[in-house]
Amino acid sequence: MKPRGRPRDTAIDDQVRAATLDLLAEVGRAGTTVEAVAAASGVAKTTIYRRWSGRDDLILGALSVLFQSDDEPTLSDDPRADLGALLGRLREQWADPQFRRLMRRLSSDGSEAPQDYQRFREQLIAQRRGLLLAILGRCVDAGYIRDDVDLRWAADLLVAPVIVAAMTHRDDVTASQLDFSVDIVLRGLAPG
Amino acid sequence: MKPRGRPRDTAIDDQVRAATLDLLAEVGRAGTTVEAVAAASGVAKTTIYRRWSGRDDLILGALSVLFQSDDEPTLSDDPRADLGALLGRLREQWADPQFRRLMRRLSSDGSEAPQDYQRFREQLIAQRRGLLLAILGRCVDAGYIRDDVDLRWAADLLVAPVIVAAMTHRDDVTASQLDFSVDIVLRGLAPG
Repeated sequence: MKPRGRPRDTAIDDQVRAATLDLLAEVGRAGTTVEAVAAASGVAKTTIYRRWSGRDDLILGALSVLFQSDDEPTLSDDPRADLGALLGRLREQWADPQFRRLMRRLSSDGSEAPQDYQRFREQLIAQRRGLLLAILGRCVDAGYIRDDVDLRWAADLLVAPVIVAAMTHRDDVTASQLDFSVDIVLRGLAPG
Repeated sequence: MKPRGRPRDTAIDDQVRAATLDLLAEVGRAGTTVEAVAAASGVAKTTIYRRWSGRDDLILGALSVLFQSDDEPTLSDDPRADLGALLGRLREQWADPQFRRLMRRLSSDGSEAPQDYQRFREQLIAQRRGLLLAILGRCVDAGYIRDDVDLRWAADLLVAPVIVAAMTHRDDVTASQLDFSVDIVLRGLAPG
């Protein structure tokens, strides 16, 4: 089906997104107004309002692009390999200095509006979190993990060191550290 | 030995510390100047300068009090119990809303001066981190943990979920979640 109207100019989307992320990193959510994004991107306010409903839509849209990549892992027959692949993707994402900086800023800005923070967070991480839990569920089905464990906590245990490294300005987690985590968690949760 | 000079007025220390932490949470490190602390605490600048060398000394001093408690755990014959006690202390610390807020703020402000952030962090966590590594070393000696593992990474795995909960505005980690972490990590690192 041919889309109605003129094709959307993705260059404008990109400009607006880049300006939104820059502002967010520099001045936080409070300063990332439609006005400021218009000024920083050189895109007219009216154009922005035709495409985004307002500040939060701009921010969520820009962050969504950061949180998703074109080649999200898909599930295979080997849940342990899938686990490694998904965590590898997470590791790459958190190794990006702009991403780290934004996450620190959002975390701190969230002190003023924790509900907004939670809403953003849930929308942004829902997809990958769901995938991680699905993979851990498959690890249970395949007999790698006991069937009486809180998989959400197991997920936290795997993911948290990657996030903390970024939040505390430490070096990126290495691939072998992440492998070690998977090894510890799978051994620690093995049946019997 | 009798201390020289007049006894230090701890009420003034407390006032200055409280003002420093409030400012730090509200306006960040950049705004936490000696001038601002003097104004907020009602203590004269000259008095502050007699006791602290400047802004970073004020901040480090105030945070040190938050990072230490009067009853830090001491080592017993049972490293597993010691591990639980130390992590319990950490959990309590991160359950304090003011502490969480400050840590989020420092993390974000650290984007402007990562070296300063690291210097603060190392001084603040050194003691407890050393204790955690000593306890994990005793777990190795007692045969609970294999002797070929990177204990620093094991420490990160135990501590990280507590920090992430605070950084991402989630509920405090519960005592049973923390027990579960210890269980997973000790099983995961058990010899044989």
